[in-house]
Amino acid sequence: LGGGFGGLACARKLKGVDVEVVLIDRTNHHLFQPLLYQVATAGLSGSDIAQPIRTILRGQSNLNIHMASALGIDLAARVVKFDWRDYSLEYDYLVIALGAVTNWFGHNEWSQHAMGLKNLEDAYAIRERLLGAFERAEILRDDPVELARQLTVVVIGGGATGVEMAGAVAELASHVLKPEYRSANLATTRVILIDAGERLLSTFDPDLSARAKVDLERMGVTVQLSTMVQEVGSGFVVAGNTRYEAGTIIWAAGVTAPAIVYDLQAENVVPKIKIERGRIPVGKDCAIAGHPNVFAIGDIAAMTDGAGVNTPGLAQGAMQMGEHAAKVIRADLISAEIRAAVKPFVYHDKGTMATIGKSSAVAHIGKLKAGGFVAWVLWLVVHLIFLVDLRSKLNVCLKWVWAYAFYRPSGRLLSARKSP
Amino acid sequence: LGGGFGGLACARKLKGVDVEVVLIDRTNHHLFQPLLYQVATAGLSGSDIAQPIRTILRGQSNLNIHMASALGIDLAARVVKFDWRDYSLEYDYLVIALGAVTNWFGHNEWSQHAMGLKNLEDAYAIRERLLGAFERAEILRDDPVELARQLTVVVIGGGATGVEMAGAVAELASHVLKPEYRSANLATTRVILIDAGERLLSTFDPDLSARAKVDLERMGVTVQLSTMVQEVGSGFVVAGNTRYEAGTIIWAAGVTAPAIVYDLQAENVVPKIKIERGRIPVGKDCAIAGHPNVFAIGDIAAMTDGAGVNTPGLAQGAMQMGEHAAKVIRADLISAEIRAAVKPFVYHDKGTMATIGKSSAVAHIGKLKAGGFVAWVLWLVVHLIFLVDLRSKLNVCLKWVWAYAFYRPSGRLLSARKSP
Repeated sequence: LGGGFGGLACARKLKGVDVEVVLIDRTNHHLFQPLLYQVATAGLSGSDIAQPIRTILRGQSNLNIHMASALGIDLAARVVKFDWRDYSLEYDYLVIALGAVTNWFGHNEWSQHAMGLKNLEDAYAIRERLLGAFERAEILRDDPVELARQLTVVVIGGGATGVEMAGAVAELASHVLKPEYRSANLATTRVILIDAGERLLSTFDPDLSARAKVDLERMGVTVQLSTMVQEVGSGFVVAGNTRYEAGTIIWAAGVTAPAIVYDLQAENVVPKIKIERGRIPVGKDCAIAGHPNVFAIGDIAAMTDGAGVNTPGLAQGAMQMGEHAAKVIRADLISAEIRAAVKPFVYHDKGTMATIGKSSAVAHIGKLKAGGFVAWVLWLVVHLIFLVDLRSKLNVCLKWVWAYAFYRPSGRLLSARKSP
Repeated sequence: LGGGFGGLACARKLKGVDVEVVLIDRTNHHLFQPLLYQVATAGLSGSDIAQPIRTILRGQSNLNIHMASALGIDLAARVVKFDWRDYSLEYDYLVIALGAVTNWFGHNEWSQHAMGLKNLEDAYAIRERLLGAFERAEILRDDPVELARQLTVVVIGGGATGVEMAGAVAELASHVLKPEYRSANLATTRVILIDAGERLLSTFDPDLSARAKVDLERMGVTVQLSTMVQEVGSGFVVAGNTRYEAGTIIWAAGVTAPAIVYDLQAENVVPKIKIERGRIPVGKDCAIAGHPNVFAIGDIAAMTDGAGVNTPGLAQGAMQMGEHAAKVIRADLISAEIRAAVKPFVYHDKGTMATIGKSSAVAHIGKLKAGGFVAWVLWLVVHLIFLVDLRSKLNVCLKWVWAYAFYRPSGRLLSARKSP
């Protein structure tokens, strides 16, 4: 279930094995989520960072790809039910790789006013709101309060997504788009990045957190740390006793498991499954305790190492778990003994990076800690390498060269507004 | 009003003139409509054929670009009202270049079941329906009736749009996507092209109409001429006493003026304006009779030549009228005499073409009539030349090379289906 990094890696690793693999996703595409913020800020089109799963995995003869949304998992009957007609599937092995959804921390009503960033629809919605606000600012004349609101962007959450969004929005308004607007309004755009913690990028080295803050502030972003969000409403955010009137509110504060995963906690599931902080605890074989034929991988799996540290919710973690789950399935197909002999999962950290703006990023790879231009070039190269197919690489490369040479982003289409 | 081919040409021609030009569009982009069918059939992304109007016209100092939808035109007060807050604009000269909308010929209820193709949203909706049908066909097992319905595409209207859509859909199912689907279902896709007239492409030379029919039929398209559509309902079309069960119904039967243009027929408008067959009659100066400061150009203008033939609703007609209206405005700014001396509008036909599939098109340029591969190469070159900016040219060129070399279309993203 799920065609993200984990699901793809698992399906690939089952190539040539004498099983029938069915990969099911609610969309028809794999999404390169690390670049999703660039779609949200108009730098790239959706099709640059998403490819049909069929295209990626063509030629794997034991693989079927079905587009459907899973509605429920019946672990006792070994059946998954889907949303279309009476479509359901029985399984021998189930790999749950559904990825995380936006966590509203008990305030689901805030989702009507703030925007998450987990899929293409989210990215398009943010882009529509941002560019729409700039367009409205061009028309607004005699209403400075509304003008300021339209041009205020609040980003909640100082992890990689929040930092990348804040930097990209600031750059979009101050450098990229300003020359094309006639009124001087765009220059007054305010970007406010709010986090409850003491530093940005809390999973990074503190030096790099500090560097990111300095770089963002130099780009004009207001960084509010140790600040709790009290309320999110229509066009405003209250945080740390300050009320921000904001036309665009972006919620990057955290993720959790989708509802169908929480449903696994139902009373009648034996043995019981307990979701912990939005993740399903799994063993070193990526299987759920007591359910040896059910695997959970990627962002929804809590895979803890000896020191109690979770494998992070990154593409590399998902891919490594996906391959490991496939390895365990291949072994299990032979015998329980062979399965027991599979080496326990160990996470290999290949490094983490986050971009802040043109010529600015932070990267932590092995012993190397880098900021600024060096980290930015590293970031560019790594992201181009990992883009799934050659056409996307060429396309994204072309668009980046274009954007950086001429400050002219390519993903900027707005539909007619539905309502005033 | 309107940032299509006509509006852009007019605004450009007013560069350097001592007037304040406000170009208003309900979207933020100019759309290269001749390639819209390729977005609908997954060959291109929206951003390949649409550019922000601000980007296209940057650097024109007497130009403002506002994104807003016109709600009403008050010719007596010389004011246009818009859909956002209390935004309205007074004008000295008004150029109406709003383009045409889908004509349902009195059956607006059919628009709930059939899909028009006039803007990016239309194209995305058709793509979603087509690709979604292929995905559902992959899951369907024991319901041959529903399977046949999902894989039947009816295209109504045998003009250039209908011919191009029918050819592109047939190619998509039979060549492009088939290798990526496991079930043999996709090969059973049926495309039916229905037209009430005696031949396809009625504005083309009869030889080319015949050629288009032969080429389409060789690609597996069923062409039903002299066939009237009696009814369009949910999942079916009745035409010429045959009922077609069809999951996708595309309506390319004709265009008309948008509602705001029809509103100009109101009683209180003096002198009266009469819309004829979806177009506003204009004089040789592109102005509406009795309203010398109000111009209508492009698809909504009925500009008749000496022989009573309308300037066709093509990009070249719109551009020529846009430039002519600008010329008349420039002259009028000097004096009524100078305006009266402007040469009457004459339409210069630069040729027409329509593509049918890979290596197949029809073209009529001056005395040259061509079909097949020659016409197809001509079509490719002409469309690349006229794409607005260099980045789009490079991008579309890359995608076409990719698609024609590997049969791998690039605009294929499907969102999660909202409902079963």
